[in-house]
Amino acid sequence: MSHPERDTRQTIVDTAERFFRDIGYQKTTVADIAKSLRMSPANVYRFFDSKKSINEAVLARYKGEHEAALAAIAAEDRPVADRLRDMLQTSYRINQARYADQQRMHEMVCAAMEESWDAILGHIARFDALMCKVVAEGVESGAFRKVDPGEATRCIRTAMIRFHHPLLMSQCSRMPGPSIDEMIDFIMAALEPPVDAA
Amino acid sequence: MSHPERDTRQTIVDTAERFFRDIGYQKTTVADIAKSLRMSPANVYRFFDSKKSINEAVLARYKGEHEAALAAIAAEDRPVADRLRDMLQTSYRINQARYADQQRMHEMVCAAMEESWDAILGHIARFDALMCKVVAEGVESGAFRKVDPGEATRCIRTAMIRFHHPLLMSQCSRMPGPSIDEMIDFIMAALEPPVDAA
Repeated sequence: MSHPERDTRQTIVDTAERFFRDIGYQKTTVADIAKSLRMSPANVYRFFDSKKSINEAVLARYKGEHEAALAAIAAEDRPVADRLRDMLQTSYRINQARYADQQRMHEMVCAAMEESWDAILGHIARFDALMCKVVAEGVESGAFRKVDPGEATRCIRTAMIRFHHPLLMSQCSRMPGPSIDEMIDFIMAALEPPVDAA
Repeated sequence: MSHPERDTRQTIVDTAERFFRDIGYQKTTVADIAKSLRMSPANVYRFFDSKKSINEAVLARYKGEHEAALAAIAAEDRPVADRLRDMLQTSYRINQARYADQQRMHEMVCAAMEESWDAILGHIARFDALMCKVVAEGVESGAFRKVDPGEATRCIRTAMIRFHHPLLMSQCSRMPGPSIDEMIDFIMAALEPPVDAA
C-alpha cells in the first residue's frame, strides 16, 4: 500500500472515530463520513467494505495502544508482582479514560461485541498472552504460588471484568465497592506463595 | 391484607411472570395481564401502581428464594470454606437456571436495573450480609486469613460477577474460561491463611 493510500485509510478512521464519539455508532453512516471528508461513499468503500470494518479499525487502534502499554510494563526490570499490579491498574486507567461516562463509546463496543466478536476474542487472547507470561515468570521464580499460569490468567481477567468491561464500569460504579486497589490486593493474595515456601 | 387479596396479588405476579417470560417485559402491558385474568386493568392497579411494581414483585420472589438458599447453606454445620464454596456455586446454579439462554429474562433484569435500582441494591446488600457473616466466621476461626470481611466480601462478589450477572453469563460463555470451579478455587486461595499461621 502506498503512503497516500495509508494516509487516506487513517483519515477515514480518524473521522469515523469522531462521528462515533459525537453522534454515536448507530446514527453514523458511511455517507456522513465520506461527506465530511469530501469523498464519495464509493471511495470510502475502496478502503472499508462496511461501517463494521471501520469500527473494527477504530477498536484495533485502541487495542493496539492498550496492548503496547501492557507489553512495555511486562518488559520492565521490576519485581514481577509490581509489574502485574501495574498492568491491571493501567488497563483500568486506559478503559476508564476511554469509556467512563461516555455512552457513545459503549455503543461502539457493544456493536463490536455483536458484529465483530472475533476481533474481541483476538484482543482477549493477546491480553491473556501478555498477562500469562508475567504470571508464568512469577511462578517460575517462586514469587507466586505454583498455579497453572493460563488458568490463573483467565481467573485474573475474569475477576477484573468489572474494571475493564465498558458496560460494567458504569453499572458497577453505582454498586458498593471494592476499589480497584482492594480488588488487585485480593487477586495478589490469591497468587502469594504459602509462607513456608517463600 | 385478607387472604383473597393476597391470593389475587400472587396470581397477578404469577401471570405477569409468565408474560415477561413468554413475550418479554417491554411488550407486556398491564392490560394484557388483566385480560388474561379476566380482570379490569383498574383492578390490577389496586394491587400494583405500575408494570415496574409488578416486575419488582417478580424479582423480589426470585431474590427471596435465592437469599433463602444461601442463608440455609450459611447456617449448616460444615467447615466454613465448604459453605462459602457452596454459596458461590449455588448462586451460579440458580442464576444459570433462571437466566442462561433466556433473552426475555435478561430484559426483565435490565428493566429493573434501569427502573428499580434500589431494589437491586437491596438484593446486593442482603447477598453481601450473608456472605460477610461466613467470611467473618472464617477469619475469626483462623480458617481464612486476617482480611477485612466486608472488603473481602465485596471482592468475592465482584470477582464472581461473570457467573452471576445475567448479561455477562451469556456474553462470557463465548469467552475463554475459567470454569466456575477454577474461579472459586482462585477466590479460596486469596482467603487461605499463610501456612505458618494455619
